[in-house]
Amino acid sequence: MLHAKVKSETLKGIVDIVSTLVDEAKFNVAVDKLTLKAVDPAHVAMVNMTVQKDAFDEYSADETELGVDLDKMKEVLRLSRAGEVMELQQDEERNRLVINVGNITRRMNLVDTTGMSDPKVPNINLPAKVAVNSDELQKGIKAAESVSDHIALTASPDGFEMFSEGETDSVSLKLPKDLLISLECKEKVRSLFPLDYFSNMVRAIPAGTVVTLSIGSDYPVKLEFTMADGKATVDYLLAPRIESD
Amino acid sequence: MLHAKVKSETLKGIVDIVSTLVDEAKFNVAVDKLTLKAVDPAHVAMVNMTVQKDAFDEYSADETELGVDLDKMKEVLRLSRAGEVMELQQDEERNRLVINVGNITRRMNLVDTTGMSDPKVPNINLPAKVAVNSDELQKGIKAAESVSDHIALTASPDGFEMFSEGETDSVSLKLPKDLLISLECKEKVRSLFPLDYFSNMVRAIPAGTVVTLSIGSDYPVKLEFTMADGKATVDYLLAPRIESD
Amino acid sequence: MLHAKVKSETLKGIVDIVSTLVDEAKFNVAVDKLTLKAVDPAHVAMVNMTVQKDAFDEYSADETELGVDLDKMKEVLRLSRAGEVMELQQDEERNRLVINVGNITRRMNLVDTTGMSDPKVPNINLPAKVAVNSDELQKGIKAAESVSDHIALTASPDGFEMFSEGETDSVSLKLPKDLLISLECKEKVRSLFPLDYFSNMVRAIPAGTVVTLSIGSDYPVKLEFTMADGKATVDYLLAPRIESD
Repeated sequence: MLHAKVKSETLKGIVDIVSTLVDEAKFNVAVDKLTLKAVDPAHVAMVNMTVQKDAFDEYSADETELGVDLDKMKEVLRLSRAGEVMELQQDEERNRLVINVGNITRRMNLVDTTGMSDPKVPNINLPAKVAVNSDELQKGIKAAESVSDHIALTASPDGFEMFSEGETDSVSLKLPKDLLISLECKEKVRSLFPLDYFSNMVRAIPAGTVVTLSIGSDYPVKLEFTMADGKATVDYLLAPRIESD
Repeated sequence: MLHAKVKSETLKGIVDIVSTLVDEAKFNVAVDKLTLKAVDPAHVAMVNMTVQKDAFDEYSADETELGVDLDKMKEVLRLSRAGEVMELQQDEERNRLVINVGNITRRMNLVDTTGMSDPKVPNINLPAKVAVNSDELQKGIKAAESVSDHIALTASPDGFEMFSEGETDSVSLKLPKDLLISLECKEKVRSLFPLDYFSNMVRAIPAGTVVTLSIGSDYPVKLEFTMADGKATVDYLLAPRIESD
Repeated sequence: MLHAKVKSETLKGIVDIVSTLVDEAKFNVAVDKLTLKAVDPAHVAMVNMTVQKDAFDEYSADETELGVDLDKMKEVLRLSRAGEVMELQQDEERNRLVINVGNITRRMNLVDTTGMSDPKVPNINLPAKVAVNSDELQKGIKAAESVSDHIALTASPDGFEMFSEGETDSVSLKLPKDLLISLECKEKVRSLFPLDYFSNMVRAIPAGTVVTLSIGSDYPVKLEFTMADGKATVDYLLAPRIESD
């Protein structure tokens, strides 16, 4: 059972983060929090999210699973104004989610969660940690997009670099240590990533968010950040492309 | 003969209302007013409009008919700024309309009105009357669009509802009596309408306009409103879809 | 050799002017200025541009030629904010142009300039000169676009007119002498031009620029204007269409 009230921008933040990777998602409802783990269909990226009860204006729940069509959630979110409170009510009998926003009531069938098993979050040890404003990541992605389909992330004791190379051109965004929020890096590490995935993930992060990237050499990158005044925590994990040259 | 000056936003309002249903229209010019009756090509919707002489800054006319290509009028309207006065002059000799806006002169051939007969406005008696702000209608339409191609309008002694139902989802906007501008309804009535027509008609109504809907059961809906500070009156009439279930 | 710093809006102005006619361009670099002459692939229009050294924040150069892919320049310009200074550095060894904007470095291969010979600017004598704000030209073009693919420019001792005529409609923008910045015209002259070329050229001119048009009868039109506070001068030349009627 779930009955909750939540500001539309909080719900939008949650939906945007998840819908970058999947169209339908299984939310694990607990008495004190919502959690979600999902992998994209190509098994390249993963999201692991925890939303505490107090990210909601009101929250009362028993343990359950909610299979949600995220496109439908986006439709309903488009009907709300910023700051407006939305009411979510599970209708267990008809297996529906009922959403009230202002004078509008939207009833949507829940998605069958049989077969939507929770992916296992891999336990990897990434040697470098870079904390940076998401706006800087956006800038580096925008620069890379015209040059290549890939982006290399490099951390060194001096700073952080996003680098892309095409046939005739290359582009890099270099952030020396003093432009980073924090840097833990003993020796240079570098991994290459598919730009489209990295771009979609970073775009889903609200502007001005502090993102901590954990980087290794030819290893996945982890992006950690919080939303809803710290009451929601998100880990994104993205698999590397192995460089052929 | 017609020679008139009119604020561009007034002319734009008139053109938008009519162009929702037809591409070409016959305006009946009288000494003291313009009137127009038109039916869309599929004979589903009708507009009946009267624009009084004093909606214009200047107006001098003899009884005549003007066949106008509304797309061309829109082109000319795009050349004007809000508040700018446009001059319309019929050139009877060459069967043209000459429009001056600022330093620009546009001359356009009039459309042949032979065969553009005035449709007969049906005399129907609709038991319920709901007056509502057009912004609320917009909101209900936006909510309905992702769910179904149809929208049901229901009036009851308690209020007004817009309801749409798809295969898996439904959505409703409920406006209780106190959120309406006025309500006359003795018993519940309900009719179903094609959403695209209803949406296009409501979108053509300027934001913040008071619209009076007359509703019956499985009957057409009538939307009445005024524009140009009450100097233009419009009736839209839309045929119902008969529900099969 | 070229090493220069320049405000992004100055560089954007230069690139917009040239990219209207060609995708790749050869800039002639001199110690005190950049010059460029280019003809569009259909040989209908020509641009002749001189950018003085002091249009740049810093400028140091030896005589050389730079073949530039203008689409790539536009990509880099999109990474800059207004007012931001961009650094251009020729890497002669690798035949590259290195551009720094903020923390971003973009390296791009230069284009081979062999075979990109400078077009000869024809020496033509055009009897009428009309100086007008580019915003008025924009307005006339916008009015013409819905009516015809051609636009006639007419200068007379009384003023300047832009006129277009389609099968059923015509449109004109008349600017009497007192609405022009200056007018030198002894007798009426008129030439017809392809609207798409004229429109693209005028759109590349910054809003509010004073443009001097030199016009003859069935002769090319010359558009002269300055940019970067007068430190860059541009001539556009556009060939006429000969009227068949």
